[in-house]
This record gives sequence, C-alpha cells and structure tokens, in this order.
Amino acid sequence: MCELLGMSANVPTDICFSFAGFLHRGGGTGPHRDGWGIAFYEEGGYREFRDPHPSVDSPIARLICDYPIKSHVVISHIRQANVGGVRLANTHPFTREMWGRPWCYAHNGQLSDWQPLPLGFYTPVGTTDSEHAFCWLMSELRQAFPTPPDNQAPLWKTLHGLCEQLRALGVFNLLLSDGTYLYTYCSTKLAHITRAAPFGEAELSDAELTVNFAEHTTPNDVVSVIATEPLTHNEQWYRMQPGELLVWRDGEIQARYLSQA
Amino acid sequence: MCELLGMSANVPTDICFSFAGFLHRGGGTGPHRDGWGIAFYEEGGYREFRDPHPSVDSPIARLICDYPIKSHVVISHIRQANVGGVRLANTHPFTREMWGRPWCYAHNGQLSDWQPLPLGFYTPVGTTDSEHAFCWLMSELRQAFPTPPDNQAPLWKTLHGLCEQLRALGVFNLLLSDGTYLYTYCSTKLAHITRAAPFGEAELSDAELTVNFAEHTTPNDVVSVIATEPLTHNEQWYRMQPGELLVWRDGEIQARYLSQA
Repeated sequence: MCELLGMSANVPTDICFSFAGFLHRGGGTGPHRDGWGIAFYEEGGYREFRDPHPSVDSPIARLICDYPIKSHVVISHIRQANVGGVRLANTHPFTREMWGRPWCYAHNGQLSDWQPLPLGFYTPVGTTDSEHAFCWLMSELRQAFPTPPDNQAPLWKTLHGLCEQLRALGVFNLLLSDGTYLYTYCSTKLAHITRAAPFGEAELSDAELTVNFAEHTTPNDVVSVIATEPLTHNEQWYRMQPGELLVWRDGEIQARYLSQA
Repeated sequence: MCELLGMSANVPTDICFSFAGFLHRGGGTGPHRDGWGIAFYEEGGYREFRDPHPSVDSPIARLICDYPIKSHVVISHIRQANVGGVRLANTHPFTREMWGRPWCYAHNGQLSDWQPLPLGFYTPVGTTDSEHAFCWLMSELRQAFPTPPDNQAPLWKTLHGLCEQLRALGVFNLLLSDGTYLYTYCSTKLAHITRAAPFGEAELSDAELTVNFAEHTTPNDVVSVIATEPLTHNEQWYRMQPGELLVWRDGEIQARYLSQA
C-alpha cells in the first residue's frame, strides 16, 4: 500500500511542514520505500517532482522541505509497490492534460480485474493498476464532457460514479485535481483537517517538529490537509467514510457525495 | 529568444557537465532570465524539473548539477520570454502523452500567425506560441498515426514536413523526444557534437570547468550533445543547416531530412 498527502488552500501556501512528516513514512517511520512524488499547482501552471528512491534518503525530497514552493493545490504520494516494478514510470503522481488543464492523480490501494477497463484518449506509460485506472477515468470524463462544463455538479456526480466503479474492484483511495478543485475519494482510509484563524501549534507524529501556524499565516487564510493517516497528534482530524467524495476549493469543502449503497 | 540543450546517449549518462555551462546562460553569461526546465528519460519513465526563476540563481538547478541523474535522452531549455508572461505554465519543456509514451518538447524562436494552427487531441495550458505549436504538431502526428507505426520513416517524414510548416511562420528550432528517439530540427541555430572513444578533455565556454571524459566513460560509450551554441571551446562542434531534421538514437544519427526548398 501507499500513502497520500493533499492540500487545498485559499492563499499560496507551502507544504514544507506536512511534507516533512510525510516523507519520514517513505522508508523512515513507514515501509513505503518504493519511490515518492509531489505535484504543485502555481498560478495556473503545474510542476511535479518524482523519485523512484525512498523519500527519506532523497536529495530531491530534502530540497522540497527546504525550498518553500507556494501553491493552492498540492498532491503527494509515497509508494510501497504492489502492482508494477519500482521504477520512475510507475511513480505517482500521474498527470494528463484535459481541456487545457494539467490533471494530477495519485492512488492508494490495489485493484483486481482492472485490465479490462477500456482506454480511450489516454494510455498508461507504466505498468501499474493505478495509472491504468487513471487513464480509464480521464477517458470516461472526457467522453462525457468533451468541453469543460459550465455547471460543475454533473461532472462531480460522474466522477463519484466512476470512483464507485473503481472501489468495486478493490481499494481505491484517490487524490485528483485540475488545479482549481481538489477531489478526495475514500475507499478505506483518508483523513482531513482544516486550519483557519485562530491558528495554533501543531506537532508532527512522524518527526520531531512543531510549527506555530499563527506565525506563518494571516487571519483570512484557510488551509486544508488531507492524508491517509493524520500527520499531527495534537489536532482534531476527521476521517472520511468509505464511498465519500469531497470536492475542495480554496481550502473549503464545496460538495460532498456519499455512496448510494 | 531562448536556448536549447539536448543529449542522446547509448548508456545512461548524466548531463551535469554540459548543464553546468548551460545554466550560466540563464541570467549569468546570457540574458535568458525567464525560467528554465530540464527533462530526463530513465528506464522508460520520464521526469522533468521546471522553474520560472533564472537558472543561475535556482536551488533546483544547483540540485541538478550536484545530483547526477543518468539518462538516455535529456531535453533542457532556458527562456527569454517573448510570447507569454514569465510563469510556470509558460516554462519549457512541455510534455504530452501519445501512444503511452511521454513526448517532451522545447522550442527556441518566435512564430507569427500561429493562433490559427488547429488543435485536436491536445490543448495548451499556457499562452505561448511554443506550446500552441507543440499541441498542433502532436495532434497532427496522432491524427496521421493513431497507433505507433512499425516503420519509422513515414513518421519522421511527416514530422519533418510539420517542422517545415512551422519554420514558414518564423524561427523554429526544436528538440522533441518520445524517450527512444531525439529529434532536433534547425531553423536558424543548432550545433552538435558526438563524443566517443578515445575520449578527451573538454572545457566549458561559460564557466570555469574542465572534464576529462576518459575518466567517466567506458570505451563503448557514445554520447551526443546538441545545443543552440557550442558549450565547449576546445572541441569541434557541427552546425545544423536551416530546414534540417536529425533523428538521434543511442547517441548516433539514424536519419537526416533536408529542406526541399
């Protein structure tokens, strides 16, 4: 299995604190030694850093901790390989362009019988179940919405339906973004926290690091962090339900879809 | 204008030496202060590093110099903005997936009347002439070859024709790769060098750095470097002709197409 980390914020925010705890799970406090990656959306642009080596030893991961990249949306993933060898092509997050936007995707879990999922516009580069599911999901969305819809609700409902189909194939915890919205879908395990004024202190669970967010924020900031397991031990995190899709924008929940089952 | 740097090699090779000279042109010995990027193909995978800040000051660029990433194909670009603001979405190289391969593209030059070039499968994320031309070119290739051709020659001929069309719109020096082949097309300025045994010493033109390749290579290594301007001053570089497309694989020229005009 793998671990996921996401962020949605209403001001460009760096993820150094959360990432510092998260990367320790990549071969340090956790067993996820098979690569890691992180993607940032900045001013309509997109960049990602991926490394097929353990995050805890990675000079690129250390750079990300030390070089604050400020972003509205971040998606990160550390990998413990199940389907697909340990190599760059199998390292999350994955990205594809749709409607002139870079879509970014990371998956935690494992699917069975994913090979028959039909592909259309998008084809996997690597050999993971995760990237195949991503290409299927994006092809389905693009077929249903050849151009970006004015009203988002039908898109979100379609996305929830596609996630439910994937959950029927196994464990499918998802982070997905087009740079404006962050979509988080829970199959088994995802927790979230929203930080807003009055800001307090937070202590990492995986490393000896405390931050006083009051010193790094302004009163209007809203920053939400979503992770497989809570990253701090002195704050209240909320666990998502199986089958739940949350749509985040600017740090806040815009919509929630629950399983019909 | 911008500058281009490419590499094709028959063994995984790091580009630290060439990149050390090249990045000095990004705000140091050259005026290209408006961002830079570099893409590496490794074991069928792909990763890129992009920064909208001058390469000479960039901590990410320093990391690339210090952390040897070994690759068969590299594409790098430093930018002096003409069309499109200085921001991440306008920073080369650009990438799109076709046939399950990540295609990487960087352009030096400026086009006029590029807006009418029709788009199909691919849509630009940023606002540059370069990315629009890339999306047009890839859409045209995908329309002509919905699946990867067994015989490469028709694909290469089509690519040369598309490059010629873009050259008719202005200056269009190109680096393009699917991870196996590196395509270099010259509109005004591109030079190349192939290093093979017996290896000698090379001295950078833009920084005080000398390397003795004999200490870092084996007798069978073949490594070619392609750049807007020669990067070393004690070796023989060859300048490409306007309208010339070279197809590189494993450090060697596989095919050459010349302008019919």
